[in-house]
Amino acid sequence: MNCSIARALAEVGERWSLLIVREAIMGSTRFEEFQARLGIARNILSDRLATLVRAGVLSRTLTGPRSRIASYLLTEKGESLLPVVAALLQWGDRWLDDGKGPPVLLTEAATGLPLRAVVQARGRDVSMRDLRIEAGSGADARTAKRLAVTVGNP
Amino acid sequence: MNCSIARALAEVGERWSLLIVREAIMGSTRFEEFQARLGIARNILSDRLATLVRAGVLSRTLTGPRSRIASYLLTEKGESLLPVVAALLQWGDRWLDDGKGPPVLLTEAATGLPLRAVVQARGRDVSMRDLRIEAGSGADARTAKRLAVTVGNP
Repeated sequence: MNCSIARALAEVGERWSLLIVREAIMGSTRFEEFQARLGIARNILSDRLATLVRAGVLSRTLTGPRSRIASYLLTEKGESLLPVVAALLQWGDRWLDDGKGPPVLLTEAATGLPLRAVVQARGRDVSMRDLRIEAGSGADARTAKRLAVTVGNP
Repeated sequence: MNCSIARALAEVGERWSLLIVREAIMGSTRFEEFQARLGIARNILSDRLATLVRAGVLSRTLTGPRSRIASYLLTEKGESLLPVVAALLQWGDRWLDDGKGPPVLLTEAATGLPLRAVVQARGRDVSMRDLRIEAGSGADARTAKRLAVTVGNP
């Protein structure tokens, strides 16, 4: 599809993939840690880790010169999924709370301030109502034509 | 799972679900519009629309008193997925560009300024390096114990 969202979902849209990224953000690096904390079947975890390494989201290195234990770390590409993961967390906290409040809080380490996942233009929050969707330089003919007539895109 | 990200993914983590939300953001309201623009099988679309309506992400109304044509609109819960969708778009633009630049641009309608999906504390951007993860009020015993010993969470 001529769409960055579809491309992103094709690479990390599988449910376990983003949960593995979440685990990596929370400090898991080894197969056994991911496995124990996610409760995921070993063969599925093995497959998903390999896929994320191939995609360049995680890097895989052995923990020592004679070690057979691999360590999985987020790459720059993986770390730049933080806004996706934080936005999902925030949405789940708001809409899928079981009445007890958020299980996990994301804060800024230096200040303890809570984090917000937002969409902004020049430092001001933008909501759905303020949005315009335009064809970009990578738009194919179909996307360009479609965006010229999209409802709500005057 | 005792995790808002897992809960969010259980509700909208299926790939088509977020693409349907994207289509709704872009102005699609009718079954035939979603179908033509996503190229999705009719039975799968029908199932996913019903799931999103049950989840309260989309509302379904008939377009007129004698109409049998349904209109699907984002609810407040659906509209608050904007940071998730915008963050996926931004990630795809950055990492999965085919060399031609972004297919679609999100801008603020009033100013034409480009949108950014960011994670902030009190108006300042926060990256993975600045992050702390703490147990919240909804943490169960396992989450609370785990966060007390998480690597990178002093």
